[in-house]
Amino acid sequence: MKPIQVGLLGIGTVGSGTFNVLRRNQQEIERRAGRGIEITMVADLDVARAKAIVGEGVQVVNDARAVIANPEIDIVIELIGGYGIAKALVLEAIAAGKHVVTANKALLAVHGSEIFAAASARGVMVAFEASVAGGIPIIKALREGLTANRIQWIAGIINGTTNFILSEMRDKGLDFDVVLKEAQRLGYAEADPTFDIEGVDAAHKATIMSAIAFGIPVQFDKAYVEGITKLGAADIRYAEQLGYRIKLLGITKRTDKGVELRVHPSLVPTKRLIANVEGAMNAVVVQGDAVGTTLYYGKGAGAEPTASAVIADLVDIARLHTADPEHRVPHLAFQPHTLNQAMDSLPVLPMSEVVTSYYLRLRVADEAGVLAKVTGLLAAAGISIDAVLQREADEVGGEGSTQTDLIILTHDTREGTMNEAIAQMQALPTVLAPITRIRKEELN
Amino acid sequence: MKPIQVGLLGIGTVGSGTFNVLRRNQQEIERRAGRGIEITMVADLDVARAKAIVGEGVQVVNDARAVIANPEIDIVIELIGGYGIAKALVLEAIAAGKHVVTANKALLAVHGSEIFAAASARGVMVAFEASVAGGIPIIKALREGLTANRIQWIAGIINGTTNFILSEMRDKGLDFDVVLKEAQRLGYAEADPTFDIEGVDAAHKATIMSAIAFGIPVQFDKAYVEGITKLGAADIRYAEQLGYRIKLLGITKRTDKGVELRVHPSLVPTKRLIANVEGAMNAVVVQGDAVGTTLYYGKGAGAEPTASAVIADLVDIARLHTADPEHRVPHLAFQPHTLNQAMDSLPVLPMSEVVTSYYLRLRVADEAGVLAKVTGLLAAAGISIDAVLQREADEVGGEGSTQTDLIILTHDTREGTMNEAIAQMQALPTVLAPITRIRKEELN
Repeated sequence: MKPIQVGLLGIGTVGSGTFNVLRRNQQEIERRAGRGIEITMVADLDVARAKAIVGEGVQVVNDARAVIANPEIDIVIELIGGYGIAKALVLEAIAAGKHVVTANKALLAVHGSEIFAAASARGVMVAFEASVAGGIPIIKALREGLTANRIQWIAGIINGTTNFILSEMRDKGLDFDVVLKEAQRLGYAEADPTFDIEGVDAAHKATIMSAIAFGIPVQFDKAYVEGITKLGAADIRYAEQLGYRIKLLGITKRTDKGVELRVHPSLVPTKRLIANVEGAMNAVVVQGDAVGTTLYYGKGAGAEPTASAVIADLVDIARLHTADPEHRVPHLAFQPHTLNQAMDSLPVLPMSEVVTSYYLRLRVADEAGVLAKVTGLLAAAGISIDAVLQREADEVGGEGSTQTDLIILTHDTREGTMNEAIAQMQALPTVLAPITRIRKEELN
Repeated sequence: MKPIQVGLLGIGTVGSGTFNVLRRNQQEIERRAGRGIEITMVADLDVARAKAIVGEGVQVVNDARAVIANPEIDIVIELIGGYGIAKALVLEAIAAGKHVVTANKALLAVHGSEIFAAASARGVMVAFEASVAGGIPIIKALREGLTANRIQWIAGIINGTTNFILSEMRDKGLDFDVVLKEAQRLGYAEADPTFDIEGVDAAHKATIMSAIAFGIPVQFDKAYVEGITKLGAADIRYAEQLGYRIKLLGITKRTDKGVELRVHPSLVPTKRLIANVEGAMNAVVVQGDAVGTTLYYGKGAGAEPTASAVIADLVDIARLHTADPEHRVPHLAFQPHTLNQAMDSLPVLPMSEVVTSYYLRLRVADEAGVLAKVTGLLAAAGISIDAVLQREADEVGGEGSTQTDLIILTHDTREGTMNEAIAQMQALPTVLAPITRIRKEELN
């Protein structure tokens, strides 16, 4: 059988990783796929560099549209990134009847509905295993491996940069700013790290997983997004003393009222496997009604781990491209005509409707009655307390007055209720600094 | 579209789990599969009990062959187990043109080649996600998700009974026999636990994974199998002091000489995620050349976790059964005609050719020169030492003489070489009891 011809748009880190792995493991991949898979055309603005990577025998152009226009090309890999030209090219490739493989989480989280609808209408596949958690086959696990289950929740460490920073902060007791600089020096964080440290990248991935888990459209605009920039070394230390680690989690959860979709730092019990995922590694925990808890762990980024996912998509397409489109795995796990229906019964909830538990740190005057006042306000709001950690006083106030940290863990409560209680506590004259609030997830 | 009609052979724990999950999540599964999937016929020797489980509207018979003979049935689920009647029924179902789903690891590890050849010849699928690690979609991950990779090794906790026993031995400092009785009382171990505690069940699963990973036929007869019955609480304690946990691992590894395929207790560094998998849980670590290390964790047994895998297979078949057989995922990941070829270049190695590192415990007389003698023998054999733990002497010998435990961790060495060195050490008059030898795996 003639090899599948693949065109590659953008040969940066992941693109060259894909080219190299496909060539290195050519024989073994063909033994699996039953058919050769070859990148025969590459588009990149830097034609000279691209030629140096691919060598002889591969056509290199600087115009992505020349790849899309080539009738010999069966599959187009989009590795340009971003919402701009990438979106136009993906839609043009679909219109030209090409199957598309992409690692572009931002594009799919924001414009997925439009792209998947275009692909369905044209009868082509858009595959995106590489868009979430790098080489971990989490999309395949959710969409196919766990297909028997009513998924209850997903919680993942799905951004390696922030997990690296949090691991370093804990290991070395350093503050965020210091570790970020080190991460940038080591190449774990980009020069402009905003998308990572503010939680946007994790929210793109959580958005894609929420759609696949619950059968709703991708709705990035409804996601709650909070990054790690405000975390202090003290909170990491206190959490540790209480038996927790702080991780940036992407969470999506089915409740009676709708779907929670949120990214924020979370306390996770140290004894959970996912709490022990360190450095730039990724892990995703999925809770299904039949299977119970499963966890998937691996490298979430990098040239070859991401290439592993891109190539798995190529092989899937090589297998399914002759199949009747209605028998292929649906883009978002569920048949497309059922997605909008589900949105009515499963709306994405505003953050104030989310129910979770909380870690609170209050900087208070070291006076009699402070604890009683604070716990009294919580009790009045119907928020029950799980644990209290009262630090020894340290003398930092003026004129010999002392201050201390008061740490409270709560049981589950509505975020809206918690926000009101925090506002009331903040108004107490004995609360001397802005209250730190970090959500806590038991994940069991 | 007409629902897929499924016939179930054997409605015990997993069978009723499958029936219940399929019915409970019927709507959601249909929204994914694009088509209904219904168990319409059940065969079980206990017809009355089967009828009580499935209720009205499902035909119950006591003759499995009546299910196979029913032209309305598209897929047969075999949940009888064992090599006997199950083998005959699976082959008959294939001959009748039915697709088969099975959880029967013993059958596939021993007779897989014959069964897959029959299925390929008849153009039907045999799906077996449930045969390894219960609800964890590890077969799918290996066969599809990691298809870009040259797999280097797999190491898994793939038997829940033994992992539960080892966890309890460590937690409570108890010996094997005591914990086994408790496990039987709690239902974590069967009345006849031989297949579990002797490592046979884990070896069946490791055999299946070795074939899928390396593109060779299933070769259970070549597997090295050692259980946990000889492990003492002392070894678990010493391992802990040295920074290791003892786990029963199923390991398969590609080396220059061939494939290692072995099940035995192993020391694993405590800091590895898999070392922290406790109780009856399963986890599999896969190392691929592109993706690096990935890990898959979840429940490896039980009615609904196993049902989750059985139903995922049903959905896969519902999707692929109209596809051209040559485009389906091959049973053992690689195209069947390439498996025997690979066997020549990748033979399964005898245990004496395996290279790993070792934990040795020697009961020795507490005399000057014992350590020098023992380490001298190791040095002469070319075995280098990683760590030594010398216990304080305890007075248990006769006539006031004292004995002590000498624990040695070695670096990598050939098992054959190690066997000879152990025989020499055993012959020393100062070595007072049979030497305990446990293999050590760094898994990094």
